[in-house]
Amino acid sequence: MTNFKVGIIGAGPSGLAMLRAFESEQKKGNPIPEIKCYEKQDNWGGMWNYTWRTGVGKYGEPLHGSMYKYLWSNGPKECLEFSDYSFTEHFGQSISSYPPREVLFDYIQGRIKKSKARDFIKFNTVARWVDYLYDKKQFRVIFDDLVNNETFEEYFDYLVVGTGHFSTPNLPYFKGIENFPGAVMHAHDFRGADQFIDKNILLIGSSYSAEDIAVQCYKHGAKSITISYRSNPIDTKWPKEIKEKPLVTHFENNTAYFKDGTTEDYDAVIFCTGYQHKLPFLPDELRLKTKNCLYPDQLYKGVIFNNNERLIYLGMQDQYYTFNMFDAQAWFARDYMLGRINLPELKLRTDDINLWKAEELATETGEDHVDFQTDYIKDILSYTDYPFLNLDKVAEMFKSWLKDKEENILNYRDKIYTSVVDGTEANIHHTPWMKEMDDSLERYLDETPVDEKELSKVNYY
Amino acid sequence: MTNFKVGIIGAGPSGLAMLRAFESEQKKGNPIPEIKCYEKQDNWGGMWNYTWRTGVGKYGEPLHGSMYKYLWSNGPKECLEFSDYSFTEHFGQSISSYPPREVLFDYIQGRIKKSKARDFIKFNTVARWVDYLYDKKQFRVIFDDLVNNETFEEYFDYLVVGTGHFSTPNLPYFKGIENFPGAVMHAHDFRGADQFIDKNILLIGSSYSAEDIAVQCYKHGAKSITISYRSNPIDTKWPKEIKEKPLVTHFENNTAYFKDGTTEDYDAVIFCTGYQHKLPFLPDELRLKTKNCLYPDQLYKGVIFNNNERLIYLGMQDQYYTFNMFDAQAWFARDYMLGRINLPELKLRTDDINLWKAEELATETGEDHVDFQTDYIKDILSYTDYPFLNLDKVAEMFKSWLKDKEENILNYRDKIYTSVVDGTEANIHHTPWMKEMDDSLERYLDETPVDEKELSKVNYY
Repeated sequence: MTNFKVGIIGAGPSGLAMLRAFESEQKKGNPIPEIKCYEKQDNWGGMWNYTWRTGVGKYGEPLHGSMYKYLWSNGPKECLEFSDYSFTEHFGQSISSYPPREVLFDYIQGRIKKSKARDFIKFNTVARWVDYLYDKKQFRVIFDDLVNNETFEEYFDYLVVGTGHFSTPNLPYFKGIENFPGAVMHAHDFRGADQFIDKNILLIGSSYSAEDIAVQCYKHGAKSITISYRSNPIDTKWPKEIKEKPLVTHFENNTAYFKDGTTEDYDAVIFCTGYQHKLPFLPDELRLKTKNCLYPDQLYKGVIFNNNERLIYLGMQDQYYTFNMFDAQAWFARDYMLGRINLPELKLRTDDINLWKAEELATETGEDHVDFQTDYIKDILSYTDYPFLNLDKVAEMFKSWLKDKEENILNYRDKIYTSVVDGTEANIHHTPWMKEMDDSLERYLDETPVDEKELSKVNYY
Repeated sequence: MTNFKVGIIGAGPSGLAMLRAFESEQKKGNPIPEIKCYEKQDNWGGMWNYTWRTGVGKYGEPLHGSMYKYLWSNGPKECLEFSDYSFTEHFGQSISSYPPREVLFDYIQGRIKKSKARDFIKFNTVARWVDYLYDKKQFRVIFDDLVNNETFEEYFDYLVVGTGHFSTPNLPYFKGIENFPGAVMHAHDFRGADQFIDKNILLIGSSYSAEDIAVQCYKHGAKSITISYRSNPIDTKWPKEIKEKPLVTHFENNTAYFKDGTTEDYDAVIFCTGYQHKLPFLPDELRLKTKNCLYPDQLYKGVIFNNNERLIYLGMQDQYYTFNMFDAQAWFARDYMLGRINLPELKLRTDDINLWKAEELATETGEDHVDFQTDYIKDILSYTDYPFLNLDKVAEMFKSWLKDKEENILNYRDKIYTSVVDGTEANIHHTPWMKEMDDSLERYLDETPVDEKELSKVNYY
């Protein structure tokens, strides 16, 4: 039965995975439902669609993008490879394991450009408000056409929400920050290290954003970087220009006061304090409310909203796996909508969610988290025909990556891994990451031979 | 007849004026309708409620505030004085004509604190979506309680929109800006001149934002400021550190290229390119669509939405007059809702709007604009019992202010004017504006005697 209508909100990696899942079904000669996808930005790619803007976009909507110049993948590309479209297929050559943003964006686009997905997407269009009509079992969605400043409504039998959760800054207040004379921003609005050359900068927070912005700023010439942590330091072998301090208590002018009684003056403060799940277009009874975790409450199999089985969320988990997890979720969601996966009754679904949540609660280390998410993806893949993915090997790579970072935060991006999709061993990049100042696709694919001598020298402590 | 319900969106100067208008009616012993007011921010005051944040607020909503540290009124306070609450009544003393932001905020709050207005306002609550129910002749408004992340709905017979139009940046793209290495921001996110000390900055745009940010940055120690204009330069007697150039054509790295063939390197770029009217919570048929002008289309008497006479907009005009104009509009709206003002039929309303629009089209100079807005306010006041305001004298002050600025952009804030409300002559501030680096209320009300010698020296060319 395919005489129903599916609305997809967001054309980032999750929304595109949903389109791709239906397309793969269609290519088998099977009928698919009517599909429409709506994207706030003027292009697909979600977070990978870089913007120079900060704060709000051209039409005054909160910006989706949190990426910056000089952003390189912070995990091996072999851990996020699509099962049905390898990096080697896309680039026609072996590349390194940690490509820059532009290269990954190109890869994402490669798969989707081979399809007719673009025809299904309406760009510059934001979902403004959703009502669920209980009598019709349909969603009424109000969209806002940003270019024409016009609203319109559409009705859907299923609604797929793939709007991400790394766009809305979580920005706590510290006493005195309002009088800090230098630049104050959230990592969401950080657009590159250049403006911090020769500056003393303070990063508040100690997760991925802090770690990466610290290293980027060091690499591109900041004078000093302090990472202020709430609970635990990252505690890796930092170069002398990077140090960690306990949490800031307050500011006086350009001086930060720390919990350990020390003080220090800074030129800029960057809040690396994470993101909020924000779903302003959804009413209370449809709105996912969760912190960033591996198994958000309310989502059966991490995908189907428990209070309304026609509402589907993709990619709302904290992420080790990314593109391939979104694929797994999209394939699962597709087969569910096509009636191939039977939905247990509410009580059983809730029990299943609670089991997973209890298991997440029992995880402690990064390795545990990797195993947990591997198990989760195995579970949902078992329902679908998504091309085989050797998840055990991917999990091994994740664990190896965790160690690489611990061993040397400055050169883990020079390591290489082997594709589980087509067996391609990654190439050593022509330039050691710490010496590579140009993150363009052009430069990346340049055939400059690897300078092995340079590479062997790269240990920056 | 007062058995109806009024919803007010926004508790800035416009929304507060609406509350105040009803309260003044109530104080006469007359019945008033049920009123509720909703405010996105955690306090009233709208634009005057300063925030250190940029981009989005604590809960991820686009920020309302566009004000910055060291912002002083750029027009005489005597031109914005409430007719029913003088500056002298509030401060108990004569103050200067150009107070800093905090002082004006204090004044706005003074009047409203004397009322019970706060009881009517729900803070941290954003209007998410409005439907007009034609059968019930009511608005269904969905609100989002940001603190609790919960939506709820309310029904109103009249909806008053007072959400302002200086919050959503208009930010055009210039080729190469994405590779500009320094800070790039819109005036909306400018939070003070401190981070630009000793820097060469480029301001794009030549209206109030550019003029004021240029002068502030000069005052607080920027090395040089370039104002890049689209049509006409401001063309005043600038100090040597400020200059004007025609429009930027593009950027290469940190170099700006201008239409006249010149180039210059900059440390930062601030877009002073204006604001958009943005009403995301309103559907097409209720949404005001206008550029910034003195008489927006679709608004009868600048207030009543022509396609839905139960929808009221306050403060949507470009503004010479501010607080007192919002008062005039609120009093007019109140009497209209109370049935005291008869609404002509659609055709006549449209004719009236078109007459005003034609008149605006015929204006040429700043003086013409002042006269136009003076006439507009006189017109709407003629329908109400708002306490007498000598608008001809206010208009004279506006024209004098235009001249003062033209004569000396650096010290026009040292001039003084006389209140038309209570006849108080403003005090000469204890410190010439160009030498006053502290914009706090405390410092402002300090009784340091005026240094006349200093004042007489202030001519900075």
